[in-house]
Amino acid sequence: MSDWSPSSYLTFEDERTRAARDLLAAVPLAEARAVVDVGCGPGNSTELLARRYTEAAVTGFDTSPAMLEAARSRVPSARFVAGDAATWEPDGPVDLFFANAVLQWVPDPLSAMERLVGLLADSGVMAVQMPDNVTEPSHRLMTEAARAGGWGDRLAGAARAPLASVGEIYDRLAPRVRRLEIWHTAYNHALPGPEAVVDFVRSTGLKPFLDRLDAAEQAAYLALYQARIAEAYPRRADGRVLLRFPRVFIVAVR
Amino acid sequence: MSDWSPSSYLTFEDERTRAARDLLAAVPLAEARAVVDVGCGPGNSTELLARRYTEAAVTGFDTSPAMLEAARSRVPSARFVAGDAATWEPDGPVDLFFANAVLQWVPDPLSAMERLVGLLADSGVMAVQMPDNVTEPSHRLMTEAARAGGWGDRLAGAARAPLASVGEIYDRLAPRVRRLEIWHTAYNHALPGPEAVVDFVRSTGLKPFLDRLDAAEQAAYLALYQARIAEAYPRRADGRVLLRFPRVFIVAVR
Repeated sequence: MSDWSPSSYLTFEDERTRAARDLLAAVPLAEARAVVDVGCGPGNSTELLARRYTEAAVTGFDTSPAMLEAARSRVPSARFVAGDAATWEPDGPVDLFFANAVLQWVPDPLSAMERLVGLLADSGVMAVQMPDNVTEPSHRLMTEAARAGGWGDRLAGAARAPLASVGEIYDRLAPRVRRLEIWHTAYNHALPGPEAVVDFVRSTGLKPFLDRLDAAEQAAYLALYQARIAEAYPRRADGRVLLRFPRVFIVAVR
Repeated sequence: MSDWSPSSYLTFEDERTRAARDLLAAVPLAEARAVVDVGCGPGNSTELLARRYTEAAVTGFDTSPAMLEAARSRVPSARFVAGDAATWEPDGPVDLFFANAVLQWVPDPLSAMERLVGLLADSGVMAVQMPDNVTEPSHRLMTEAARAGGWGDRLAGAARAPLASVGEIYDRLAPRVRRLEIWHTAYNHALPGPEAVVDFVRSTGLKPFLDRLDAAEQAAYLALYQARIAEAYPRRADGRVLLRFPRVFIVAVR
């Protein structure tokens, strides 16, 4: 897969950072020494962490060199290193693992969360947020457009698998922590029109679809996808469209 | 309908106050002069408001004398008056209307919100939270148990009507405000067992059902309802049950 695009991802910075802010607001730690931003991306979440925990050593890691470079210039006070959420090891006990919009990309999010909880200091917190939108029209229509264009087989593995249910997450983590809260928030982003819905998902969920097509195919695929999006997201009275975007939040205290 | 029970309502204070705290965290006002707690109940939300806006004149109103009395002894610094959300008039412009878990009880929540927005000072904020759970098993099964017991007709009006959709709320409020955010959060309350699910809704959604039955009928109805709840909310690995509780949040800046 080609590297991530920090500028495209940040086009919707307000909308995306809202979820990171909500996650941070739910972290029950007044202070922390060792804070780790798991899959830090371009550093917007790391910036929030560095501002809230001014005394902490903040480390961000990510698999993408482009994202790490963007993060370094955005948050000079933090340390950024290459690493994968499924395998990265800290130097010592961690007070806060903050995993905003990243664990949906690892092959086994439940095992990744279990592992992170095991690396926490006593009373440490794991805070996780993941988009839970594969059954929303925005994501279902990616697969439908692939089939309509005759690329059903080639793009079969491009869609993200559905997340575990709340009950499954609860059963896996509850025995390992002293406190566990799991909730969903579905935001409604008021966007200028259906094209903006496509732009919103282009650098994330749509990327694995586009990456498997050549330039001409990408254009044809996008036309099929956008027509379906326009139908599924009708304009409201003021001309805008509302993109419903559900996300799951998990806050576990060891 | 008989008066509300502050003590029963407060049994699940942590769970219920969580939504009020989340709503308050989303209010984009650093300070305020006139703050109004719409349908203040026993004062748990008023207490949050008085703590956050220490310089403000905080007024709480409610239709229930028992709730007002509980609120007065809980928050001595606030003023509490009798009033209905659909008709109450402030003395002057209001910086913040805070309506936590109340507007679902007025006959026309959309018109009530429109009216409150019209009473705001410039840049004032209306913050609303309503349970949006009438399609959840906890609430669907109230009507199903009524039918199973032969009280389908007598209890026909006891169920709360579904709320307006996000699109309808958006279309109604967006032209009247400079900023509008609407989102849903579905909490998952880990309760000791199915009986606790019944207790959770007993003082709110279940109350209109029970109020229309005599004591013997209430016992029979509760048995039917609880059996269905036990089936719909299976125990997790640790023996607890997860009560999914979706709520809609609306924050409008005039």
